[in-house]
Amino acid sequence: MSAETDYFAEFPVISFEGEDGENELAYRYYDKDRVVMGKTMEEHLRFSVCMWHTFCWPGSDVFGAGTFDRPWQTEENGAEAAAMKRRTALEFVRKLDLPFYCFHDVDVMEPAATVSEYQTRFGTAVDHLEDLQQITGRKLLWGTANLFSDPRYAAGAATSPDPEVYAWAALQVRSALDATHRLGGSNYVLWGGREGYETLLNTDLGRELDNFGRFLNLVVDHKHRIGFQGAILIEPKPHEPTKHQYDFDTATVYGFLKRYGLEDEVRVNIEANHATLSGHTFEHEIATANALGIFGSIDANRGDHQNGWDTDQFPNSVEEMTLAMIEIIRAGGFTTGGFNFDAKVRRQSVDAEDLFHGHVGGVDVLAKALLNAERIIEDGRIDDFRAQRYAGWDGELGRKIHTDGTSLADIADLAIARNLNPRHRSGRQERLENLVNRFV
Amino acid sequence: MSAETDYFAEFPVISFEGEDGENELAYRYYDKDRVVMGKTMEEHLRFSVCMWHTFCWPGSDVFGAGTFDRPWQTEENGAEAAAMKRRTALEFVRKLDLPFYCFHDVDVMEPAATVSEYQTRFGTAVDHLEDLQQITGRKLLWGTANLFSDPRYAAGAATSPDPEVYAWAALQVRSALDATHRLGGSNYVLWGGREGYETLLNTDLGRELDNFGRFLNLVVDHKHRIGFQGAILIEPKPHEPTKHQYDFDTATVYGFLKRYGLEDEVRVNIEANHATLSGHTFEHEIATANALGIFGSIDANRGDHQNGWDTDQFPNSVEEMTLAMIEIIRAGGFTTGGFNFDAKVRRQSVDAEDLFHGHVGGVDVLAKALLNAERIIEDGRIDDFRAQRYAGWDGELGRKIHTDGTSLADIADLAIARNLNPRHRSGRQERLENLVNRFV
Amino acid sequence: MSAETDYFAEFPVISFEGEDGENELAYRYYDKDRVVMGKTMEEHLRFSVCMWHTFCWPGSDVFGAGTFDRPWQTEENGAEAAAMKRRTALEFVRKLDLPFYCFHDVDVMEPAATVSEYQTRFGTAVDHLEDLQQITGRKLLWGTANLFSDPRYAAGAATSPDPEVYAWAALQVRSALDATHRLGGSNYVLWGGREGYETLLNTDLGRELDNFGRFLNLVVDHKHRIGFQGAILIEPKPHEPTKHQYDFDTATVYGFLKRYGLEDEVRVNIEANHATLSGHTFEHEIATANALGIFGSIDANRGDHQNGWDTDQFPNSVEEMTLAMIEIIRAGGFTTGGFNFDAKVRRQSVDAEDLFHGHVGGVDVLAKALLNAERIIEDGRIDDFRAQRYAGWDGELGRKIHTDGTSLADIADLAIARNLNPRHRSGRQERLENLVNRFV
Amino acid sequence: MSAETDYFAEFPVISFEGEDGENELAYRYYDKDRVVMGKTMEEHLRFSVCMWHTFCWPGSDVFGAGTFDRPWQTEENGAEAAAMKRRTALEFVRKLDLPFYCFHDVDVMEPAATVSEYQTRFGTAVDHLEDLQQITGRKLLWGTANLFSDPRYAAGAATSPDPEVYAWAALQVRSALDATHRLGGSNYVLWGGREGYETLLNTDLGRELDNFGRFLNLVVDHKHRIGFQGAILIEPKPHEPTKHQYDFDTATVYGFLKRYGLEDEVRVNIEANHATLSGHTFEHEIATANALGIFGSIDANRGDHQNGWDTDQFPNSVEEMTLAMIEIIRAGGFTTGGFNFDAKVRRQSVDAEDLFHGHVGGVDVLAKALLNAERIIEDGRIDDFRAQRYAGWDGELGRKIHTDGTSLADIADLAIARNLNPRHRSGRQERLENLVNRFV
Repeated sequence: MSAETDYFAEFPVISFEGEDGENELAYRYYDKDRVVMGKTMEEHLRFSVCMWHTFCWPGSDVFGAGTFDRPWQTEENGAEAAAMKRRTALEFVRKLDLPFYCFHDVDVMEPAATVSEYQTRFGTAVDHLEDLQQITGRKLLWGTANLFSDPRYAAGAATSPDPEVYAWAALQVRSALDATHRLGGSNYVLWGGREGYETLLNTDLGRELDNFGRFLNLVVDHKHRIGFQGAILIEPKPHEPTKHQYDFDTATVYGFLKRYGLEDEVRVNIEANHATLSGHTFEHEIATANALGIFGSIDANRGDHQNGWDTDQFPNSVEEMTLAMIEIIRAGGFTTGGFNFDAKVRRQSVDAEDLFHGHVGGVDVLAKALLNAERIIEDGRIDDFRAQRYAGWDGELGRKIHTDGTSLADIADLAIARNLNPRHRSGRQERLENLVNRFV
Repeated sequence: MSAETDYFAEFPVISFEGEDGENELAYRYYDKDRVVMGKTMEEHLRFSVCMWHTFCWPGSDVFGAGTFDRPWQTEENGAEAAAMKRRTALEFVRKLDLPFYCFHDVDVMEPAATVSEYQTRFGTAVDHLEDLQQITGRKLLWGTANLFSDPRYAAGAATSPDPEVYAWAALQVRSALDATHRLGGSNYVLWGGREGYETLLNTDLGRELDNFGRFLNLVVDHKHRIGFQGAILIEPKPHEPTKHQYDFDTATVYGFLKRYGLEDEVRVNIEANHATLSGHTFEHEIATANALGIFGSIDANRGDHQNGWDTDQFPNSVEEMTLAMIEIIRAGGFTTGGFNFDAKVRRQSVDAEDLFHGHVGGVDVLAKALLNAERIIEDGRIDDFRAQRYAGWDGELGRKIHTDGTSLADIADLAIARNLNPRHRSGRQERLENLVNRFV
Repeated sequence: MSAETDYFAEFPVISFEGEDGENELAYRYYDKDRVVMGKTMEEHLRFSVCMWHTFCWPGSDVFGAGTFDRPWQTEENGAEAAAMKRRTALEFVRKLDLPFYCFHDVDVMEPAATVSEYQTRFGTAVDHLEDLQQITGRKLLWGTANLFSDPRYAAGAATSPDPEVYAWAALQVRSALDATHRLGGSNYVLWGGREGYETLLNTDLGRELDNFGRFLNLVVDHKHRIGFQGAILIEPKPHEPTKHQYDFDTATVYGFLKRYGLEDEVRVNIEANHATLSGHTFEHEIATANALGIFGSIDANRGDHQNGWDTDQFPNSVEEMTLAMIEIIRAGGFTTGGFNFDAKVRRQSVDAEDLFHGHVGGVDVLAKALLNAERIIEDGRIDDFRAQRYAGWDGELGRKIHTDGTSLADIADLAIARNLNPRHRSGRQERLENLVNRFV
Repeated sequence: MSAETDYFAEFPVISFEGEDGENELAYRYYDKDRVVMGKTMEEHLRFSVCMWHTFCWPGSDVFGAGTFDRPWQTEENGAEAAAMKRRTALEFVRKLDLPFYCFHDVDVMEPAATVSEYQTRFGTAVDHLEDLQQITGRKLLWGTANLFSDPRYAAGAATSPDPEVYAWAALQVRSALDATHRLGGSNYVLWGGREGYETLLNTDLGRELDNFGRFLNLVVDHKHRIGFQGAILIEPKPHEPTKHQYDFDTATVYGFLKRYGLEDEVRVNIEANHATLSGHTFEHEIATANALGIFGSIDANRGDHQNGWDTDQFPNSVEEMTLAMIEIIRAGGFTTGGFNFDAKVRRQSVDAEDLFHGHVGGVDVLAKALLNAERIIEDGRIDDFRAQRYAGWDGELGRKIHTDGTSLADIADLAIARNLNPRHRSGRQERLENLVNRFV
């Protein structure tokens, strides 16, 4: 097929046409050069398209075969198909006028059965991506290695009971990290999709954690050896495909990093749908990462509140994304990170057009959320109320409690001496929620 | 009421009558002096009865009033009622022939409105408990302070926005820890029932964590000052009553302890129902605590897999408790900890008899689980399979990976040099599950 | 306290001040006389304030005592307090300028220990409510009887194992239905909070369902005897306080009504938070009720997607309520029903002001949702797409399938004869979601 | 491959060797000829092996490729592979010494692209199965048609917006039902895996339900036309792969059957893992089906209480299965139904041996559960307590309530006249749970 990059030929580059624009395939809020709180929207949001859902997944699920019919998703799945996929992908990012893309090693290459095939084929793919980045003007937000799809990783990669599997994982991560460095990627991500267990009966949890900690230290060390300046990120998820995944959530990852001395080296890539699967809101995970000093990047998507698996839908709640955006801004915004659409169109959305609807809608939801967050922060009432609520901690008693040398007994005695009898004061939750709604 | 301690008069001391005993109020498995793996069952299991569910809770729920009609649960709820409750409680533990009990400060005293009332009334209660321990021969597994029921703690205690509330909490914890020390308690527990948030909109998460870390450091310091030799324990719970509780689960608590330099000072008190609310199995939480070196004690109960709140039912699954017991034994068993029944009879189970059914059933479930675990460990097939599964890590490649100086590139190069192509080997989950069933 | 109705003295009647109004205690969208799709907003939305959460609940939860300090929530809780509560409640509805209120029998009276006390005290309360309706110009959306709080109902009311309890329930429902009729109520609601079970071990499920079906038939018959023209409504909930509640969700209630011949007599009162607890979206429950012909009324509130119990928060998602509103309009809108705020301010929101924030915010969220739904329906693109998607069913094949006499074999043979090979067509979910966002 | 049926050559026929047998691949409880409550265990349990999980699924999941390496799971997947699969499957059932198997049309044939290919290839497969049943002495518990895997069914089969898809479904169901009849199947099952929706925005729920009701009526009519004597069964599931599936649970299916006049024609096939996904216990679904008169058959498996998708693990809890077995016996036991293992070995359990461990363990868990249930029923204490609890309903008041002509007012007046003041009596839940444990 020679005309393969024409898959999106009928679609123009998506542009900003304003809130009242009638064109369904235009941005209504994402005006990339508009300055918001001192940065352009493009700089704030740093959007990225992912390879896996949008170009590799065939529309299959556990109960049914692929419904899509992309020209590069062929039976033989050889070198030519892989090249077509790469070209089409970067062309799509260009058509969306977004700056970044993300990939796993295996997303961009044809399958490889041996170490040498892996090296050769991935090498070819990376050469091609370097050219395509040049041609299309797109950049790499992050690279990663797929350590979960191949049957050899059925029991984990860095936590496999088999050190030969661990060595294969090392090979892939070395290759993917080197490639990310060469392609100018801003971050390198590790998602431990199989780093967990199916049953404790056959699992040495302590040993697996130590092997995993060792692996992450090796990766960080390699980063420094090759001079990669981007961030190393771990992506938490509680389970699925595993019964239990070690990187359960942000707080768990923090404890893991502390345990293996990596809290200053590694940050988190937070995914909305993973947050909700772990029993948290998306904004909770961001706020936690911020409080713990490990906020890195975002995988933008949404789950389904009634379904207990990773649905990876495009974000479409401006309300929820506004709350998340407030926490991102409280965390200082992105440095190396960005919003990567780790989202897929529904299995029933089989047309090229649907890929545009998904991404255009997601971009605009986040753009509008940014504008809302700006207004809420400029309004100041919520932040003022919050600050006032804790004002006592800047007073005499608050300072005394935190003074070195003050003991529990000192504080207790003070309560007695002053005959303290504090009453609860309203937290004004309903008022604050109304204030948010005023700007959404 | 003079005959108050006669509330259980009709019930004899519960004794071991063997597996085939027809008496429903006898132990069929719990033979306290039977030696299992080198310790008596009493020493292994270290059972405790809790004051709050069994003697304070009136059988109310969110939708209905108390159904119980205990003689000490009176309208006036004065000093006499509190004394009756204390006497009845320790008498009940004696009737069950179990060694321990647990309490919150407010469980054992009449209500107090001021610091001085609090001190006086709690002091009287502790004096009485000391006598009662003597009379009944019962011991204190752990004490704690209730920092969640009083309206002043509506927004938290150690994480309150109001430092005066924090000071009240310090007063209560100092008192309860001193009392625990005086009563010979084996542990002191902190459950942060309100240490969390309802909405991030009014919450400074980082500040609250720092205040909480400071509090815990003050408590540990106080323990050392007074010479308390028991363990300080944190009890994780993900939420309820809060939207989000900071001590979400064991892994989160570990990160918190590391952050505030307390990982060698504080351990966890794991509750089965809290484990499942946080998205984990009970045995997972124990295995995690063991791997992280912070396993302390257990709150024995069970939740309902279809209901999303803390039902605090008595444990009644020998199968599940056997899996938990295996992990406890892998963790070396209890040192200061034990099995505290943080469990309540159903609101419909209104009779004194029901309290016996609940506890006798729970004791026997755990006793049988211990006997099962012993047989599984003695059989050895599961542990052997597990050890074999990781044997590669004791081999040359496994050792090399963990050798100082080995780099990611070294390992990757080795994969290439050896042309590694490892295949997954069966984890034999079904076989291992069948083996467990063989001993349950 | 003589000035009791002055509890809200400092608050003026809430009025519409427009979208840009800066007054936090004014309506920004709810303009009661504005005509939307042929009816005023007041007629569309039929807002109601509930007695129980807003005037009876003291701010307690399972882990803590009441935090509120309303003047009518006194220790003695006598006739005067009950009168004050009634006056304050209707005055509050007037201050909100909303048309309706709702109550349980026990909400509006002081406690009663005997049948005669019950009758006398409830009678006095109803007399007073009749006067207050006159004075304040407020109306009753629906009445109901509380068959779940008294300890006698611990094992159910209409499904109690004890027929005497059933008789008490009959007494209360007769009284509450008669009162609703006398007060001009538009509906009568049954929520079977204890009509379920804790364990199947002691439950005769079939017998309980038959007793429940009998009860509902008796109620419907009584309605006709007294000439009550309003609707009888069942309010589904899956569980809590019970382990399992028989009125699990709308589809279950429908099957129950069919079984006992009541599908033309009884409709459903759908609560948002109950919908999500049962594993459905709010809009799903409305759409289902509409498809089954039993849509009645709404209990407006929201749950927490991460917490597994009934949080009964005020609705604050315009996005979600817009989806629900579309389904309400598809169902033809309310006839006897309305939006009753079965919602409570948070336990931390202790001030009178917070009650206003909760209700004003909730009203505006639903008002804006109505305006959004109007625009979406007028735009027509979503409905057009949906209609086109099913167009085949109006064609020859679709009609043939539904023709009497067509057999499975006829249709199969037709597939063969025509060598049918249909392909899936895109469902355009992402596009439709974007279209909704355009109007939210 | 000529030696294909030798896949299980190394395994002997599994036999009963008693509780203390050391052979891990023998039955310890399932003694097929042992008489339990008047029937042999084989007659009671009616075990069946499913084709799809055990012979078709390659060990893939959403995040990874197939790990199994069965000789019939080849790239070309042609007629020979299909034949090998059929032979191997029935040989496996013979090796397990179980009486039944189950299949979908597409499980037993090679893929077909057209109606004629479908008919020819499925016809060949059915001929072969008829021979294999003869050779191996195995029988068909039920057949079904797969109306969910092919992309054409992405938006449903009987609820597709496209009537041509509906016609294809009619073709498949006609073929599969005819085949089931010819092969002497005891039941025919419909699982509506795609009969639901992804978003209400593009869904006409009422129309889809009517189309679905029509389809089921056509199927029942066809059954009678061809003289099939087996039962038609619907298998409830709440969701997955759909966002919402119309056959949510047993109560929902009952309402659906009543609506379309089929409650005497169709029963339910209850799956344990589907029960828990819908928010119910497995035993609840059986008890409900029994109460509603639609209990049919069982898909035996288990889910994971912490994971929100269909894990389809083998049953391994004797405790849970005992509770389910009690309800099955209360329902009168199986008539046409049986226990079909709709269960799969874990993706990591890649060996032929693992298939035996899974099934042998599952068989024994259910066999032991049957023996436990027998003892509990013979003991009688639980049933006695339950009967006593409802005894009032056989008394004068209970009978009066159910007498024709008794009105709500009559009952209320009687409560007044007798000054009723009933008190709750203990439900003895803890005692009953202990009694169950006595026999598990």
